[in-house]
Amino acid sequence: MTPVNLGIDVGGTKIAVGVVDQDGQVVARGAGPTPRTGGRAVLDAVAGLAAEVAAGLPVRAAGVGVPGVVDGGGTIVSATDTLPGWAGTEVRAGLGDRLGVPVAVDNDVRVMALGEAVLGAARAAEEALFVSVGTGIGGAFTLGGRPRRGPHGTAGELAHLLVPEAGDTACGCGRRDHLEAVASGPAIAAAYRRRTGGDLLPLTAVAERMRAGDPDARAAVTGAARLLGRTLAGVLSAMDADLVVIGGGVAGIGAAFLDPLAEALRAEVLPPLRAVPVVAAELGTDAPLVGAALLAGDVEAVAR
Amino acid sequence: MTPVNLGIDVGGTKIAVGVVDQDGQVVARGAGPTPRTGGRAVLDAVAGLAAEVAAGLPVRAAGVGVPGVVDGGGTIVSATDTLPGWAGTEVRAGLGDRLGVPVAVDNDVRVMALGEAVLGAARAAEEALFVSVGTGIGGAFTLGGRPRRGPHGTAGELAHLLVPEAGDTACGCGRRDHLEAVASGPAIAAAYRRRTGGDLLPLTAVAERMRAGDPDARAAVTGAARLLGRTLAGVLSAMDADLVVIGGGVAGIGAAFLDPLAEALRAEVLPPLRAVPVVAAELGTDAPLVGAALLAGDVEAVAR
Repeated sequence: MTPVNLGIDVGGTKIAVGVVDQDGQVVARGAGPTPRTGGRAVLDAVAGLAAEVAAGLPVRAAGVGVPGVVDGGGTIVSATDTLPGWAGTEVRAGLGDRLGVPVAVDNDVRVMALGEAVLGAARAAEEALFVSVGTGIGGAFTLGGRPRRGPHGTAGELAHLLVPEAGDTACGCGRRDHLEAVASGPAIAAAYRRRTGGDLLPLTAVAERMRAGDPDARAAVTGAARLLGRTLAGVLSAMDADLVVIGGGVAGIGAAFLDPLAEALRAEVLPPLRAVPVVAAELGTDAPLVGAALLAGDVEAVAR
Repeated sequence: MTPVNLGIDVGGTKIAVGVVDQDGQVVARGAGPTPRTGGRAVLDAVAGLAAEVAAGLPVRAAGVGVPGVVDGGGTIVSATDTLPGWAGTEVRAGLGDRLGVPVAVDNDVRVMALGEAVLGAARAAEEALFVSVGTGIGGAFTLGGRPRRGPHGTAGELAHLLVPEAGDTACGCGRRDHLEAVASGPAIAAAYRRRTGGDLLPLTAVAERMRAGDPDARAAVTGAARLLGRTLAGVLSAMDADLVVIGGGVAGIGAAFLDPLAEALRAEVLPPLRAVPVVAAELGTDAPLVGAALLAGDVEAVAR
């Protein structure tokens, strides 16, 4: 029986585990709620799910995408409040003990970027900037198909770039003139509420109203997209890349988000970068599992 | 006679040429005004100066630091109005013909960063962010002692990062909510004029008044430094590095500029990066010549 790699995605509300084949297809999967009682409980829940999903299969290695900043030893060095007791968790060692296989750990956005760089939208790009727009804003810079970690594991963190607007929500770090405060999903929902004076709707409802012709909904989406595009123009000038890939739940809105983003980026970026393509991520909702399984392949290669 | 490398610095108003020894000392030098009559006239002037400075010496290679974005072939692909007719100039080919030796060309800020990375403040850092604050704001990201160019030659361009203030001058690109519009030398001078309502003074005069106790001068300097620090916090989170080096004429103001910059950076950067040192550049006014001579060493190594 061919040994398999496990892809594991630890989110703020849900844990997903998948068996991923060599073509990046998820051939078996399981999911459960993320415990709110500390890092050990999260690792126990992951191990339980993995045992179910991979029952009877020879597991070679596991890759894990997690929220927060991860150090080179697979320990969480910094995390927002999304997951209580998460900072300090030794994910690599703790899961290695529980699963009995080599474990590789990285930031969840970087894991998605790895998937896009190897099997998705950036597979032909030598250097790509991956941006994930969802509840938060994250990013990764891939070189030769691998996301850069940086000496402190923060490379690609785009949430805290300054923007010339206070924003309608706070950034994950608490400040208001950061990118995440104006262009994340909650920021778009809050901008819509400010325009209409009504209840705070989820982003999906705002997107639905936009498609039904609500001009306030369109303005909230377009405003966030344009400011993200302007911010990425500055980032692209500073980092330089062959390609910009936009993923995450907000990018799922489609052209109504991506087109004004790309237009604003091109209007403000340095002339030599105006032809850099801005494209949507390709791996969709399986990206975290596929990327994590690819990460497992990396650890296996290193362990040899 | 030991062959020597030439370091050449092409500025908006002045061209400097130096013979640099292996320890990074400028052992012979010359300078002249930059012609305003197009790229060829600039190259002719450089060649004339080089012939004087290196008269009788066996020149092995020349390195040139230039304003603007340089492509991999040593041609200027993009430049602001500082130097008329500069965009499109084939610096490497044109100077190679005139000097008869291999020529390496790069952006002037990246050349200074190379000097700092090899012989200056960043010589012990694996990954460093170099920021030059002067008439404009530039930067470079050095990896293993070499500044990254990026696929379009723009890597390290920090001027166009967004900031949450309109600024008192325009950025080199014409916009006002860009970093260069709030934290460059001219921006500090303009902020001082706005506070005092007087004439527009040069930065040196503002710095002198600050040292004499003028609170408006101090506020203009501190305001620019703090906003640069906040912006670099976002950049450092996104790029990650072991060290931040601040150079350029404005950095020459000293602790009154560097201290509030570093304080603002540390207050806003992601926790794992709070201990990253923020230090002053070390090579001073010879940095462009020393860096350019090191660049000449690179081309020579490649040519072998």
